[in-house]
Amino acid sequence: MRTALLISLALLASTANAANEPQLLGRTTEQVLSAAKASDWRDAALENTLYLDLPQGRVVMELAPAFAPAHAEAIKTLAERQAFDGSFIGRMQENYVVQWGQREGTEIADNKPLPVELFAAPAPSTHFAALADGDLYAPQVGFADGFPSARDADGKRAWLTHCYSMLGVGRGDAANSSTGGELYVVIGHAPRHLDKNVVVVGRVLAGMPLLGSLPRGSGPLGFYSEAEAKAPITRIRRALDVPAAERTHVQVLRTDTPLWQAYVDSRRTRREPWFVDPVGRVELCNVLPPVRPRP
Amino acid sequence: MRTALLISLALLASTANAANEPQLLGRTTEQVLSAAKASDWRDAALENTLYLDLPQGRVVMELAPAFAPAHAEAIKTLAERQAFDGSFIGRMQENYVVQWGQREGTEIADNKPLPVELFAAPAPSTHFAALADGDLYAPQVGFADGFPSARDADGKRAWLTHCYSMLGVGRGDAANSSTGGELYVVIGHAPRHLDKNVVVVGRVLAGMPLLGSLPRGSGPLGFYSEAEAKAPITRIRRALDVPAAERTHVQVLRTDTPLWQAYVDSRRTRREPWFVDPVGRVELCNVLPPVRPRP
Repeated sequence: MRTALLISLALLASTANAANEPQLLGRTTEQVLSAAKASDWRDAALENTLYLDLPQGRVVMELAPAFAPAHAEAIKTLAERQAFDGSFIGRMQENYVVQWGQREGTEIADNKPLPVELFAAPAPSTHFAALADGDLYAPQVGFADGFPSARDADGKRAWLTHCYSMLGVGRGDAANSSTGGELYVVIGHAPRHLDKNVVVVGRVLAGMPLLGSLPRGSGPLGFYSEAEAKAPITRIRRALDVPAAERTHVQVLRTDTPLWQAYVDSRRTRREPWFVDPVGRVELCNVLPPVRPRP
Repeated sequence: MRTALLISLALLASTANAANEPQLLGRTTEQVLSAAKASDWRDAALENTLYLDLPQGRVVMELAPAFAPAHAEAIKTLAERQAFDGSFIGRMQENYVVQWGQREGTEIADNKPLPVELFAAPAPSTHFAALADGDLYAPQVGFADGFPSARDADGKRAWLTHCYSMLGVGRGDAANSSTGGELYVVIGHAPRHLDKNVVVVGRVLAGMPLLGSLPRGSGPLGFYSEAEAKAPITRIRRALDVPAAERTHVQVLRTDTPLWQAYVDSRRTRREPWFVDPVGRVELCNVLPPVRPRP
């Protein structure tokens, strides 16, 4: 009966579309993505893209300077100075984070504390695709130009959320102690209690399986003990500093389109025949924008 | 100011305790766990414990027959008949599940379809530690004798939730097609859309790092392609079938105690000095009961 009701609603929604529009609502994820046009995808911003090259392959990260401009800039500068090259992944904690730091001796001499960028005033140019399903941790959640994020009820403060694959900046006990030289990526269930406690600066768009399958550190908090081989980092480069032929181009599904709303709808209500209960709701970190190689 | 208010509330709560009781509320997680007595922990039920032995080590799983009695029984029978021994892990999908099946030819000849155990009426003897923080996917959530679970608003139906580390039973498109011969474990962000769509039957209590660090399958849905080495399974045994000296004994923090409530409180409001925003809420899958080796 519930399925029948959902089908009726879907049909209503479809009928409301102009006759020559693709009927996107009420479809499965596969159907929605098949209907995506080239303009429904965006290239990852080249000027905000970093490559973390491991012996096993490449991890592609996109920074979100709108949320943490000083941190994004500091990380780009460190990458430009090759401060992470030849360093190691020092921490891998099951269901939590993988973390690495810059090579010893590469600290920037005139280093001043970065501003504490735990949240930001949303720029008027930012498109915020609010998620109607609610959230346990924040008054509003959705996608800010494609990045999972939250907002205060009045929308005056916005922050990136600790979903799987998000890139954060490690710090000590002092809130202003992050330099950009210590980075982490969420590898498991979203540790949303970290939101607004530590700077989130971007998202890993490709290569998560390389990070996720690293051996776990056996020390406290997943730090590798000295007896264990830490995973080496070949280099971290700004995409702009890499010869064009050696770049990895990926695209992210845009979140400011009708197709995005249909995608969310297809994740919220599961119409694949396997499902016996189509669910009817979706949580922020379960509907991250899909990524694909640039065609 | 927010911190000051929280400290006041914590002090009030502590004051309300009897003078000779440990003051458990308003503490950090470390303080709460240090205050735990032997009686705050329970042994994993030996009769519901299975060992998944891999060349890398042992994964300890505890079944929850209260939620899926026929499936738990079928899995125990398959383990008793050594149906998983020498089989392989066939699927490892990043941020989703690891999955394996019984060895070919070990199907139980008189196999009848198992009942569809997507939810159950809660037994009166079950203790349900409701979580006050709410949930996006279900009217009520909490811990049923230690297992993360949800309930309808009227409490008539209960089901285990797809949190990280939960053990489920694979099936085909037909809801009654699960036999217990295909099992999966959640390795990433909780795929709660699977709740009430597929049978959940228990929880991995130890060994998750062994599963989480397996290489990801490159085929669709994370199935290993033929060119890749699937990870071998040495054996799956009921703990009861293993000589006493070879058993792995673990304990789980009880969820029917005042100490459990203090533990949840310490996860909800983060009092460690590192936090600048103590959060004030916690989501079901972020507060799974801690596990330790039996002292």
